[in-house]
Amino acid sequence: MIRAESVETLFKKTFFAAAIIFVFLAKKGKMNAAELFEQIRKKRSFLCIGLDTDIQKIPQHLLDTSDPLFAFNKAIVDYTHDLAVAFKPNLAFYEAQGAEGWGSLEKTVKYIREQHPELFLIADAKRGDIGNTSGLYARAFFETLGFDAVTVAPYMGEDSVGPFLKYPDKWVILLALTSNKGAFDFQFLREEKSGSRLFESVLRTSAQWATRDQMMYVVGATKAENLAEIRTIIPDHFLLVPGVGAQGGSLQDVAKYGMNSQCGLLVNSSRAILYAGNDRDFAREARTQAEIVQLEMEELLLEADLL
Amino acid sequence: MIRAESVETLFKKTFFAAAIIFVFLAKKGKMNAAELFEQIRKKRSFLCIGLDTDIQKIPQHLLDTSDPLFAFNKAIVDYTHDLAVAFKPNLAFYEAQGAEGWGSLEKTVKYIREQHPELFLIADAKRGDIGNTSGLYARAFFETLGFDAVTVAPYMGEDSVGPFLKYPDKWVILLALTSNKGAFDFQFLREEKSGSRLFESVLRTSAQWATRDQMMYVVGATKAENLAEIRTIIPDHFLLVPGVGAQGGSLQDVAKYGMNSQCGLLVNSSRAILYAGNDRDFAREARTQAEIVQLEMEELLLEADLL
Repeated sequence: MIRAESVETLFKKTFFAAAIIFVFLAKKGKMNAAELFEQIRKKRSFLCIGLDTDIQKIPQHLLDTSDPLFAFNKAIVDYTHDLAVAFKPNLAFYEAQGAEGWGSLEKTVKYIREQHPELFLIADAKRGDIGNTSGLYARAFFETLGFDAVTVAPYMGEDSVGPFLKYPDKWVILLALTSNKGAFDFQFLREEKSGSRLFESVLRTSAQWATRDQMMYVVGATKAENLAEIRTIIPDHFLLVPGVGAQGGSLQDVAKYGMNSQCGLLVNSSRAILYAGNDRDFAREARTQAEIVQLEMEELLLEADLL
Repeated sequence: MIRAESVETLFKKTFFAAAIIFVFLAKKGKMNAAELFEQIRKKRSFLCIGLDTDIQKIPQHLLDTSDPLFAFNKAIVDYTHDLAVAFKPNLAFYEAQGAEGWGSLEKTVKYIREQHPELFLIADAKRGDIGNTSGLYARAFFETLGFDAVTVAPYMGEDSVGPFLKYPDKWVILLALTSNKGAFDFQFLREEKSGSRLFESVLRTSAQWATRDQMMYVVGATKAENLAEIRTIIPDHFLLVPGVGAQGGSLQDVAKYGMNSQCGLLVNSSRAILYAGNDRDFAREARTQAEIVQLEMEELLLEADLL
């Protein structure tokens, strides 16, 4: 009698465990802003690692493997996944290798999805086209490839962004203020009526298109002083901040001007981590570099009372 | 004696013919504005056929072939190449099919290059990223794929466009005024100091970055009335005009406001030609549709005294 009860209990426990796993897996690839913040707290990091995987820069010995870009990415992910909340392949690096490069990207996304379903996956593609065509880009990145988010250029306006927002569990990351010199060509033009600069108009207008659970913004770290102004327009949205590290931005400044009550930051580092080493030990050296950034981020999260 | 001379003459003739063919092949894929105008005069057409090849729209019987997108493109090109000066695959349609779609695109470009080297090939990709990354996109479209031109988004400014211009025989086609509703969100914002609207600032500023042999502009046909204003800023540049046909723009208006002394127009039609028919005769029906457009264009070129 006692033995029969135990079996029943064991059965119930197994059933509930399976149900929890099922719910977790069903949610795989879905992450809202609060869940992203939870990951940040858990990992004590708001690091995004940019997989700008350049065939001309990866260690020589990988060129003998059947898929060098994937081999490199797999090693980097294996060694750094616990230090980052997001990974961000930039499409240009894969397209430069043609169909083969696109294949390496597919394998990378599939590998991360299977091995580390908690990671937030961003396609840094900077796409944008007329409505029906943007719909196909959305299909490419969200369905065919299975990313959580895609970067989009704002020039063509709402109907070029809308098709990406039709996927309720996916994100658009809109270019607002970029980290390059050319940002000064148009993004700072001041509008006659409102007195706003173009990047401010982009923020103000596009913030109407979606909630902060579906939209975040690219804001370059090299313009950290603009972050404070940006926070007056979009206090609650997540910002994806490139330009820290090789591009010279300061993490302290980004946190000082850009952090909000749910962190609200994903700070990207690509080259400084990926190419920290260049021999057989490259992934370990990448980890060492990522650890330095993660520790600095942990410090900043503690200072802001977010841990 | 006479016979020996003939052999020598024949040898010389063969040598010169081979040299001419070699020079022609060496120039394959290189075309400046004057040469583009020559093609327009030769074909009596300024038609660009947009290869927006949608797996969900192509005739059913092609789905049984090993590469449906390529099979469709090949048939369309075979039936229409003499009526158009340019072909323009939109990348979104290929990316939606992942690595396989990218493969179909590679095959399409290769086929056109080999069979019809006089055609001008545009990658409608609307790319743009920070400098070193744009350089990789340039490599992807100009080297890996072998296009003559690529469409680029202006938001990130000069250093995002520059890497494409480093290829002296290749073209950038910059988005200026697009044909969609969202164009009104930002492109018409009027700048405080100059009183220019954003698309005018884009034209004025970017015209300094390259000559009219390397730069042209996307100007939507649904805004033909703006063409006259645009021609006061860039009288000599070629314009790539989408939005005629399915999107509702008028070819007469485009010619009236946009044509210059070297035509200066490539007018794109995609869906109206590609999907004119939907059974085994689709390519012939596409040709019929393209012929209607070509004849209308010939008329307009004659009216403007360009033939």
